[in-house]
Amino acid sequence: MKQLRGTSLKRFLRDWRREHAANLPDIALVLQSVSYPANVGSLFRIADAIRVNKMFLCGITPTPPNQTITKVGRDKHNDVSWFYEKHAEDIIQALRTEGYHICALELTDTSQPYHQIAYPDKICLVVGNEDHGVTRSALALCDSSVFVPMYGKGHSLNVHVCTAVVLYHIIGQKSGK
Amino acid sequence: MKQLRGTSLKRFLRDWRREHAANLPDIALVLQSVSYPANVGSLFRIADAIRVNKMFLCGITPTPPNQTITKVGRDKHNDVSWFYEKHAEDIIQALRTEGYHICALELTDTSQPYHQIAYPDKICLVVGNEDHGVTRSALALCDSSVFVPMYGKGHSLNVHVCTAVVLYHIIGQKSGK
Repeated sequence: MKQLRGTSLKRFLRDWRREHAANLPDIALVLQSVSYPANVGSLFRIADAIRVNKMFLCGITPTPPNQTITKVGRDKHNDVSWFYEKHAEDIIQALRTEGYHICALELTDTSQPYHQIAYPDKICLVVGNEDHGVTRSALALCDSSVFVPMYGKGHSLNVHVCTAVVLYHIIGQKSGK
Repeated sequence: MKQLRGTSLKRFLRDWRREHAANLPDIALVLQSVSYPANVGSLFRIADAIRVNKMFLCGITPTPPNQTITKVGRDKHNDVSWFYEKHAEDIIQALRTEGYHICALELTDTSQPYHQIAYPDKICLVVGNEDHGVTRSALALCDSSVFVPMYGKGHSLNVHVCTAVVLYHIIGQKSGK
């Protein structure tokens, strides 16, 4: 096997996008006070990769322009529709009236493992602060919650890593295998 | 729904681990010249989370003790069986004789989307340098290659993000949904 590089890589990616991007589910992503710019940058890069429909930066989440967001996110905040909204609860309620199923990425007393549920066609994933997670008042507005199973000694993974795992699973499931 | 915290979080995670960790597939992870310590740290944290059986740091991959690896990896190099091996090719060949299917995480002329194939029970994932990927000589020793689809403007995701997406998919598929 031979690595694709240069023109053949670009052609492959363009063809893939043309053939598959239209079948992606409608995903909204809400960052409720994600505090590290590196995580926000990485989340922009991930949001571009899976064509998140819109992304909301809330509370203390740093916003572009920001050097770290630009560098870690490879400028992808320019390719993602993003908005700042002070209160995550407000945008969650607005998205709900638009027909989104609101799912928190959080370990709660009713959380399901992220890979064991069927996701609806319009889904809003809410992720929280690195230390405190999704707040009680935001959780009260969510329809469901999922968690990424941990099988080792650690109690958690980085928020951008978890988000990538869950979002790729959702588009894999929804776009048909 | 209510966030799990403190003792109830620890109890939940312990029970989850006891019930499910035994069913995980046998995964080996080879880092061929991953150059950033932050990526290596993050990969240790991920490797612990999904109980990678063994992890090989090759070539120019930085190794513990390393401040950034420790900080980003949350000390998880202490909980993962890891080894340094100068030439990735040597350990790939050794793992092959141990019965591992060798899969490169690389976009090649024969790559499959990571979520569209059935993985065998013993799997070795090979990931490469942030800029250059898996080398030609290592690819020549691999049984297959997979890629993480990109639907946006970007051409790639960070190596630790891609690795988490693929490894969580493999254990989700193998451990039964």
